[in-house]
Order: sequence, then C-alpha cells, then structure tokens
Amino acid sequence: MKRKSRKVAIVGSGLVGSSCAYSMVNQAICDEIMMVDRTYDRAMAQALDLSHCMDFMGTRTKVYAGTTSDCAGMDIVILTAGANPKPGQTRLDVLDEAKTITRSIVTPIVESGFDGIFVIAANPVDIVTYLVWQISGLPRHRVIGTGTSIDSSRLKTLLSEIFSIDPRSVNGYALGEHGESQFVAWSHVTIGGKPILHILDQHRERFKHLDLGDIARKTKDAGWEIYTRKGSTHFGIGSALAYIARSILNDEHKIIAVSAILDGEYGQTGICTGVPAIIAGDGIQELIELNLNGEETAKFTASCDIIRRGIDSLSMG
Amino acid sequence: MKRKSRKVAIVGSGLVGSSCAYSMVNQAICDEIMMVDRTYDRAMAQALDLSHCMDFMGTRTKVYAGTTSDCAGMDIVILTAGANPKPGQTRLDVLDEAKTITRSIVTPIVESGFDGIFVIAANPVDIVTYLVWQISGLPRHRVIGTGTSIDSSRLKTLLSEIFSIDPRSVNGYALGEHGESQFVAWSHVTIGGKPILHILDQHRERFKHLDLGDIARKTKDAGWEIYTRKGSTHFGIGSALAYIARSILNDEHKIIAVSAILDGEYGQTGICTGVPAIIAGDGIQELIELNLNGEETAKFTASCDIIRRGIDSLSMG
Amino acid sequence: MKRKSRKVAIVGSGLVGSSCAYSMVNQAICDEIMMVDRTYDRAMAQALDLSHCMDFMGTRTKVYAGTTSDCAGMDIVILTAGANPKPGQTRLDVLDEAKTITRSIVTPIVESGFDGIFVIAANPVDIVTYLVWQISGLPRHRVIGTGTSIDSSRLKTLLSEIFSIDPRSVNGYALGEHGESQFVAWSHVTIGGKPILHILDQHRERFKHLDLGDIARKTKDAGWEIYTRKGSTHFGIGSALAYIARSILNDEHKIIAVSAILDGEYGQTGICTGVPAIIAGDGIQELIELNLNGEETAKFTASCDIIRRGIDSLSMG
Amino acid sequence: MKRKSRKVAIVGSGLVGSSCAYSMVNQAICDEIMMVDRTYDRAMAQALDLSHCMDFMGTRTKVYAGTTSDCAGMDIVILTAGANPKPGQTRLDVLDEAKTITRSIVTPIVESGFDGIFVIAANPVDIVTYLVWQISGLPRHRVIGTGTSIDSSRLKTLLSEIFSIDPRSVNGYALGEHGESQFVAWSHVTIGGKPILHILDQHRERFKHLDLGDIARKTKDAGWEIYTRKGSTHFGIGSALAYIARSILNDEHKIIAVSAILDGEYGQTGICTGVPAIIAGDGIQELIELNLNGEETAKFTASCDIIRRGIDSLSMG
Repeated sequence: MKRKSRKVAIVGSGLVGSSCAYSMVNQAICDEIMMVDRTYDRAMAQALDLSHCMDFMGTRTKVYAGTTSDCAGMDIVILTAGANPKPGQTRLDVLDEAKTITRSIVTPIVESGFDGIFVIAANPVDIVTYLVWQISGLPRHRVIGTGTSIDSSRLKTLLSEIFSIDPRSVNGYALGEHGESQFVAWSHVTIGGKPILHILDQHRERFKHLDLGDIARKTKDAGWEIYTRKGSTHFGIGSALAYIARSILNDEHKIIAVSAILDGEYGQTGICTGVPAIIAGDGIQELIELNLNGEETAKFTASCDIIRRGIDSLSMG
Repeated sequence: MKRKSRKVAIVGSGLVGSSCAYSMVNQAICDEIMMVDRTYDRAMAQALDLSHCMDFMGTRTKVYAGTTSDCAGMDIVILTAGANPKPGQTRLDVLDEAKTITRSIVTPIVESGFDGIFVIAANPVDIVTYLVWQISGLPRHRVIGTGTSIDSSRLKTLLSEIFSIDPRSVNGYALGEHGESQFVAWSHVTIGGKPILHILDQHRERFKHLDLGDIARKTKDAGWEIYTRKGSTHFGIGSALAYIARSILNDEHKIIAVSAILDGEYGQTGICTGVPAIIAGDGIQELIELNLNGEETAKFTASCDIIRRGIDSLSMG
Repeated sequence: MKRKSRKVAIVGSGLVGSSCAYSMVNQAICDEIMMVDRTYDRAMAQALDLSHCMDFMGTRTKVYAGTTSDCAGMDIVILTAGANPKPGQTRLDVLDEAKTITRSIVTPIVESGFDGIFVIAANPVDIVTYLVWQISGLPRHRVIGTGTSIDSSRLKTLLSEIFSIDPRSVNGYALGEHGESQFVAWSHVTIGGKPILHILDQHRERFKHLDLGDIARKTKDAGWEIYTRKGSTHFGIGSALAYIARSILNDEHKIIAVSAILDGEYGQTGICTGVPAIIAGDGIQELIELNLNGEETAKFTASCDIIRRGIDSLSMG
Repeated sequence: MKRKSRKVAIVGSGLVGSSCAYSMVNQAICDEIMMVDRTYDRAMAQALDLSHCMDFMGTRTKVYAGTTSDCAGMDIVILTAGANPKPGQTRLDVLDEAKTITRSIVTPIVESGFDGIFVIAANPVDIVTYLVWQISGLPRHRVIGTGTSIDSSRLKTLLSEIFSIDPRSVNGYALGEHGESQFVAWSHVTIGGKPILHILDQHRERFKHLDLGDIARKTKDAGWEIYTRKGSTHFGIGSALAYIARSILNDEHKIIAVSAILDGEYGQTGICTGVPAIIAGDGIQELIELNLNGEETAKFTASCDIIRRGIDSLSMG
C-alpha cells in the first residue's frame, strides 16, 4: 500500500494561480502541484520557476505542467481562470462569457474522471461556483468558492491594525456576495473573544473616531484600492486558496467564510454566497448559521437577491 | 550593527522545561536556548540531546547549558522550576517552599543584569508569578504566568472534539486561578464566531446530552487525568510556554489567557490571576476585560479571593 | 473520493515515542497519531497531553490512544517499545527478550491488516529491524530502522559547532551498527560540499588541534553522555523518527542513513545495518553505496560481522 | 529592554521584490517588511495585498510601504530594482544605467543611517553588488549578491529530477558570473554525499544517456526558458532572497553560493562573483574555497575576467 500523494491542480496560471502555488510551496501544503493554463507554455514556465524554489524550502513539492484532461488523480482542482471584463461589455455579457469559459474548463476535468473537490476563485466567484456545481454534477459540499474569505481577512487586517492585535485573535465575517452587496456581520465580530460592540460601548472616548461603516467600506473596497494601483490582487486571494486547500488536505475542520451552495440555510435555496463553513477532508462539512440581527438579515437577503438575479440571467443565457 | 539573536533561558530542565525547549526547536521560535537546572548535568544532558535534533529541523536553534547568572542577554527567562509538594506538607508549607525556591532563582537572574520578560509555569503559578514580580522589581507587564492558557486550550480541545471543529476555530477562556477555583466564561465561548449559548439554544435536540458543567469540570480536571496516569503533564504546558514566547519574540499581539498582575482590571488589585491579555514584544500590552455575567463575576471574585489568601499567607511567611 | 488522512501509530509511549509524537505535532507531519502502549493508561495520558497542544499549533493533529490491533489503516507504525537490559543479563538474554517483545507487538499489527511501513527505533535497532522484517513478512523496503541516522546527526552537530556552520550545510555519515562498532566515513564528509579531508589538508595550522578520531568517538559516545546524565535520550531520536516519517508521508526522497536489510549492497546479504538510503512514499527506494576506502571497508565488514553474530544467535534462540 | 523587531526593506516592488516578500510572509522569516518602489503607489498596493494574507498564516508579519529614506532601522535591505535593457542599448549603456539607478537608491539608504546588510538581486547582479559595495562604503561582508544561488538551485532541481532525489540531498554549485560564463563545479557535486563522478563511473550503463554538459547548459539557460515563456522569473529568485535573509536573521551559518567581493580568495581581488559563503548574522562570515580542478579553475578565471571587464568599464563611465 503505497501512500497516495496529496495532489492539487491549479487551472489558470496567471498571478492568482501562481501566487496560490507559491504559497503552497512555501508552506508545503501538498506533495504535487499541477499548473494548467490555456497557454501551455505559461503553465510550464510557472512550474519551472516554482520548481527552482525547492532547494530553499524545508519540504519539497513537485510542480509540473498539465492539462484539464490530467485531473483524474487530483484531490483538489483550484479554478482561477475566468473572463476578464472588456470595455463596453454589459454585466450579462460578462456572465455569458464566464459560463462559456467555465464549461470549457470543468467539462474535460469531470470527463477525466476527477472525483475530488473544486475550489474556485474565478470571478464573479459566487456565480462561477454555482456554475461549477451545475456543470460538474458533484454534490454541493464538494464545490467551494473563496467567497468572502478574502473580504473577512481584509476586515480582520483592518481591525488588527486599528486595535493593534494579531489578526488571528480577531474573529469576524464579511458575508454575502464577494462584491458590492457584501456586508460585515458586526454582531459577531469579536476581539480576543470580546464582542466589538461591547468594546465600543465601554470605551466611547477612546474609540470615538472609530466608524464601523467606514471599516466595512474599506473592507469591501480594499481589493479595488489594490487593483487601481497595481492592476491585480493576488497575494491575499492566493493565500486564501492555499488556506482552504490545507484545511481540506489535512481534514482540519477550520471554519472559513466561503461561497457555498445554500439548501435552506439562512432561508435561502439554490444560490451560492459567502457564509461560514466547516472545511474538512470531504469539502464543506456543515454551514454555520449565525444569528444575524434584523439589519444584517436584510442585508443578507438583499445580497442573495443580487446573486440570484445573476444566476437567473445565466439560465436564460 | 550585528543583529542580536533571540535568546531564551529555561530555568528548570525537567519534563516541562525540556518539552518547552523541544517545541521551540521544532518551531524555530528563537535562535538560542539556554537550559538551566539546579543539577547542571541535567541541563547539559537536555541541551546535548536537543542539539542532536538540528539536522532534522528546517532551521537551526543553538541549545546549550548555563546558569541563572548567565541571563543578562536573554530576551525571555522561562521559569519551570518549582517546589514538589511532599506528603504531609500543608498548603502553607508548600507556599513557603515556593517562595524560597523562587527567590533563590530570581535573585541571581536579576543580579546578572537580566532586563527581559519572565514567563512562569512553576506552580502554584498565580502565586509564583506574583512572587517573581515582587522579587524581581520588574514592571508588571514583564512578568507573565501561563495561568489558564493551558486550561483554555484544554477547553478548546474538548469543544473541538465534541463539535468536530478545528480548535483554532473555537474561542473561549477558562479564567481565574490555574487550580480548583477556575471557571469557564461560557458567555464568551464561540464556535466559528457563533456563541455556544446560541448554538445550544437553537439545536436543543442535537445537543441535548451536552452538559456545560461537565465540560468545565473536564477542563479543570484534565491535568489531573494525565497526572494520575503518567506522573506529569508537560506537552500541553510546554506548548503554551512556546506559544507565549513566540508572541513576545515576534511582537505578535496575540490574545492569550495568562496569569497577570491586576491593577484595577476586573475590580481587582494586587493579585495575579488568569485573564486574557495582549502579548507583544514588551510583554503584556493590555488586559482584555470581558463583560462577565453575574454568575461569572461571582466566580471570578471567589477565585481571586482564594489566590489573595495564598499571597497574604506568603507576606506573613 | 474523500482523501485518506495520513496516519501514524507509535507503539511504545515512553519518552522516545512521546517525543516523536510531540515533534510530529509541532511540525504537523501527519493528520492522526495513535499512541499505543503495553500500559493503555500511559498511551491515553500521552494522547491527552498531546491533544492539549493543538490550540498552540499552526495545524491540527488528532492524537488518540489505541492498540496494536487497531493498526490496519495506518501508513506508518513506529516501533519504540523494546527490552530494557536488566543487571546480570547477558547479551543473549537481551536479544532473546527483544525477540519475544518484538514478536508480541508485530504479530497483532500484521494480523490487524497493517499494510504500511515499519520504522523502528527500539534497540538493539539493527537486530530488532531485522526481526521485524522476519516476523512481519513485509518486503525489505518497508522495514526501516533509525540505525545511524541519529549518530550521523550527532556527527553533523559536532562538526557544525567546530566549524561554526549550519548542520544542514554539513554532510556525512556514521555507518554500520548503531552501537560500538559504528564508524564515520570520513572520505565522504563534506562541509559546504568541500571534503573535510581537503579542509584539514589546506588549513593545517588552523585545525591542528582537530582530531577526527576524537570526533568519531564523541559521535559514538554522545548517547551515553546524555544517558548517564538524565537516564535516557529521546529528543534527538524522536526527531530522527519524525524526519523519516515525513520523508515517507511526503514522498520526499530524502537520503538518510537508516538501518536497512542488505541484499548484496556493500557485499553483504541477510543483515541489517546503517547505510544511506533514499526514503520515499513506499519506504526505502534504493540504497546508496558509497565508495568507502580500504580502512572504512574493513570497519564496515567488522561491524556487519558483529550484527550478524547477533542475528545468528537469535535464530538459535 | 524591548526586543527589536526583525525588519527587512525590499527596494523594488515588482515581481521579484513582491515574490520575495510573499515568501517571507509565508515562512514568517521576519517581523516587518517595508516595501519600497520608485512608484510609491505600487509599493503601497503590494503592502496592502500582502497584509491581507495574515489571517491565513501561522505567524503575523507586518507589511507596509516606505521610502529609501526610511531604512535606518532595517536589518536588511534587499535590492531588486534595476535597469531594464532597452532595444538598441549596448552592454555599456546598460551598465551605465545600472550605475545611475543603483547610486540613486543606495545613497539615500546610507544617508538614512542604514547600518545593516545589503542583499542584491538586481542584474547584472555581480556588477550591481560591486557597485553597492563601492557606493555604500560598507565592509565587503555586508554586501551580498544572489549570484549563482539561483543557478545552483536550478542545478539541484535538475539533478533531483534525473536521480529522483530530494533536492536537499543533492549538493553542488554553479560558480562565477550569474550569466553566460558561469559553470558547474562537477568535482564537488554530490548526491547523498556521494560524488556524482563516482556514480557515473560505477553505473555507466544506467546513466549512459546522462550528459553533464547538457545539464550545465540547462542550468544556465533555465532562467531564459522561463523568461521567454512568461516574461520574467521571480519565484525561484524570490525564494533565494528569502533564504539568504533567513540565514542572516537567524544567524544560521548556512553555506550558500552568493555573489561576494573577493579579496584574495580563489586568487582574485577587487571583483564580485558567485562562490560558496557562510551566511550569518553579520553577513558573509567566510568564503569557502573549493579545490577546483584545472578545467574548473580555467573557467572560473575566464568568468572573473568577464565580470572584471564590466567593472572596469564602469569606472571609466
């Protein structure tokens, strides 16, 4: 009985895909990484560049190039390849193109005999995740979008700087769409286990300049702040992907805000949106339903409605 | 300007001290570890054994033996050496012996010119931490006991098993004395950010066999369960020490339940007990005051009273 | 297709076994560790103590107690339980007891359906490894003793201190018996890739006090130096075990001096001794045959003869 | 005495600089990273993107943007910013531009009071390293170029694939110029401590298709193979930088092939080229002089001559 290696394929070898691979190499998250790209030469170049890191790492990861037809033995396929909005395209155009691209990627992967877990970062991530679920025919717990994991991380980074606290001692989520309609569930944000609402209440003077609305806005706009300055965001999202992959490969049962297909949770069905989920060896083990307050529930519903409209427009497409 | 190495002395080279050193070697938490022991040969043997690990580690840590007089350049002194209760000793006898031993260790360390941070695991840890503060004359933020960090970890381990969740996705504290009078602050226990009290309320059927009192009891008794079976507990507490040391050396600002000298926090002054604290490069940066409910506040007060009586008996000694 | 967890059983929950487990927990080398011991309570106590570390670690490892009959699904069984020589016992008595104990452990493991890799640290390790091979009926590449891995590490630690070099930049092996008849293959010791014999030849004045015989002696006696001072050696050997396990679980193909069953290599057959080997997902992939010089070859042969006499005496037993 | 954080500035926030930062964040190599760039917005965007990784990492690294005037307290300044050859430029034009850019960066850093170690990856690295030494006025051991560290890593990656061995069990160096005139010192290449020349000699049939000249060529051309396919190489070199930084910050004494200013070593003076060096807390502690054979010595001399001509042309500039 030879042990099976932990294998991850990354489809899309651009900045996001290669950053994810680099993070996994640095952290020794799996044994093998297969880089895949529409342009095979790019996948090959990324694999070659990444393979030259091994002498500098504590543990070796084999990195090589492959195609969507080589995914049969993979534990995880990470999907970062998507449509790039072009000037003049409507939202429907973009969704239509995303559908075409996603289908062209997922179909050969499934036909190759892939029987693992999809982790999706391609945007619009909530809708692409839904599409992958539909196209692949896999059970919903095996299709996971990065969703608001990165937005939640940005929230924690902001709070960690404001309060001068390690981000791992901060807990909290951005929920809903990975996009404009997302919101922060302030009722469940804690710092060292203490609700932030208590902190603000008790230390009014000290935090009188703290504006939660402003923090939520910065959380949502952080990606845009980066994008306008360097033309992409890839380190944060690459790390989020590596983190989700690790929780799967090590069966860690970490709770992460991911884009999940809802089936009654939060009163929603047939859509895919950012909610906290237990991530384990078989994908999403369970969704965590927070007791959102009235305002938060309204925001969640509104965000779901926006995603649903996107999904519905696709079905018509 | 040559960079100063990160140096940690461990006073007491028994199972706890050496486990702490081994964890730091495995995680490459510092550059140098000095093992100290009443029996110099034991410190030397531990250092030698630990030095043979380096070929198997990703990063090298130098480990060597030294004495309490060699602590001038240390960033942290970890104190694990203490009194072992003997049959027939009263509680006062034990405290008296702890006082003598602590003084005999701390005095030469301070005289050596040590100007770093004390981290204390020697039992009774709340009282020994108080003693080290008194004897050393250091400011209170530079004297840190492991307190209920290990009890909080045990609580999280128990909850992580019951709910099948990664312990890092569980938050919660055992507070007060690292001893019989400790208690779990259930009002602030969260799983994936969701209060456990909400979970139990919403899923009464699913968790009808869950008894919080029983979990609190197991949390408190876990050390004893181990002690009766193998004569000591050292891995958990060794890891707690390494974790606190890392948060100091990397200036991480992690929030950890440690034994801290209170100066008005939680309405208490002049005692040392387990509360959440921000641990950073200069020791305790700030204490976190949780909004305990009435029952919890009563338990906290009762626990402080017990510790205070121990401290008071010392002053008389 | 749910990913299979990486599982390691450790049989013998004393200082060596538990140190190995602690190292694996600190380095997150596998997903599950099962502690096994003749005294079930001791295995349980170690598992419990180790489980309390998780909150302080970057990645979770599940640790629990089990028995030799629970090893069916394990990737690796690490064997640390062995005979403790008693006063008045002859060498033959000790070997005889080792045989009895090893059989009592290996038989139920094999009967449980275990189909993985044995890694053995129980002493006399070369002979116990041979015994495990014979009793288990597994192919020879799936039975690996720690052999001179720890002696080689001690050699590198000594050289790293003398030359003030990172031990990972030193290469070299102690070969043959993990015991008195071992020797250092100086012809293949390099520092930063440069043969030590060249260094000594070129820098006679600088290293005039360096005595290779003395270093070889210290390498061999290091365990004894520790043993006489603290009654056991466990951190170095625990790390060696974790290192071998990691090279197997991650299919790393690291070259490590282990105790391997020879089948013609180095002109030897039917014995087990310390030689460099490629350690990968299916155990020993290949042995490295160094070009030993005349003196080294004679020492290797002499060492093999000693081990062979031990093995032969067993067959008679 | 508050512990001083380990601080690294990265000047040049493009693909190489940001990949280096990302690797350091993933491996928690230092406490703070300051991103610097000619375009401040780019440095800011990289810092922001990198700061969003923290929630997904085991240890926190603070990442922020700064300028060359903010380098006073840094332990290391990593230099990745350089000239990009433009069509029609002669080699002299390129060198001249490198000189101007390097001066414009190094001067304000030194004036800021920087008293740490420069690590340089900007190309042509051997010449830029020499320039930084000249401009900064720092002692030569505090100015380190990545030199042939990346080429040596590529060599080990190639050999590790051919022999199916962990790259860390392979040792060997590409020496001389990080450029066309570099060469592999085959006399000192070992696999598991065994010289590759012995292996080829003993296993002629098995390795009859192995062509060392071809491997050396692939080693040298690997960067180009990547560059033509994706327009840059950054992961390998980013990891090399992180590795060198770690060996400095942890005072590891690792031996790495870096670009060092020679002062008599290898019979060369007043130039900077790729040789093995001990990297420790104060930079290069000592150079390792390998016993190159006749052919290798001739290649080394030829390579040094080429670098010297570059340096000489600068002095004229």
